[in-house]
Amino acid sequence: MNPGRCAACRYLRRKCPPDCIFSPHFPPNAPRKFVSVHRIYGASNVAKLLQQLPPHLRAEAAESLCLEAQYRIENPVYGCVGLVSLLQQQIHDAEKQLAKIRAEIAVLKSQAQQPQAAPQENLLDIGSNLSFSNHQASYGFM
Amino acid sequence: MNPGRCAACRYLRRKCPPDCIFSPHFPPNAPRKFVSVHRIYGASNVAKLLQQLPPHLRAEAAESLCLEAQYRIENPVYGCVGLVSLLQQQIHDAEKQLAKIRAEIAVLKSQAQQPQAAPQENLLDIGSNLSFSNHQASYGFM
Repeated sequence: MNPGRCAACRYLRRKCPPDCIFSPHFPPNAPRKFVSVHRIYGASNVAKLLQQLPPHLRAEAAESLCLEAQYRIENPVYGCVGLVSLLQQQIHDAEKQLAKIRAEIAVLKSQAQQPQAAPQENLLDIGSNLSFSNHQASYGFM
Repeated sequence: MNPGRCAACRYLRRKCPPDCIFSPHFPPNAPRKFVSVHRIYGASNVAKLLQQLPPHLRAEAAESLCLEAQYRIENPVYGCVGLVSLLQQQIHDAEKQLAKIRAEIAVLKSQAQQPQAAPQENLLDIGSNLSFSNHQASYGFM
């Protein structure tokens, strides 16, 4: 056994070549990273995904592949998409709550006496500046 | 050519068996769905992922695999994880803005005259009920 092999080559029981595509991103001290991506994507698909990227982007890509594989193992039905839905729901709920606050502020402003007008004007400005970009995942498909 | 073959079997140039694992989820009229998952996961990994689930969950799983594959094709470095980061940033920004509103409301309350106390009390209650569950993707890995 060669202790210098990366986690991928060790798992695949092969020699780790000097230009190994896995070696920089799957060190021997973190074997589970490769086990996860291998289980979900397969070694050849991971290699293909990394090879099509310029070298300086491969570390981030390997990390995001590991995360997605991990999400899929934890949640085989929805994977990472389940987390996206959850976060979109949180943003939707926040928008509803903010709309409620803005309505209450508007009522308060209309009830206010003249001396309190200045701070309430500020509040309204803050309310109207709140924005959530409507980045929605498209769930329709082709 | 058999026009009744599912999109997967047509793409893989094979006969579509009656118990085809792909057939219910990759109809012949949506060929790109299978092309995407095949490119990212490979046919055998998709089949394996679907087979390990009970039949009533396979449609949702196939849909989420298609979405994740599509995200990865559009964003080969970050895939779906890039969208998760974006949404988490939006929630973080919203929390900051809400904290600012709450502070302004507290100032307003302290400045308010007694007759305006009732509506401002409501406002404060709304502010304190706002919550975002802190579901954070774990970016540390093993």
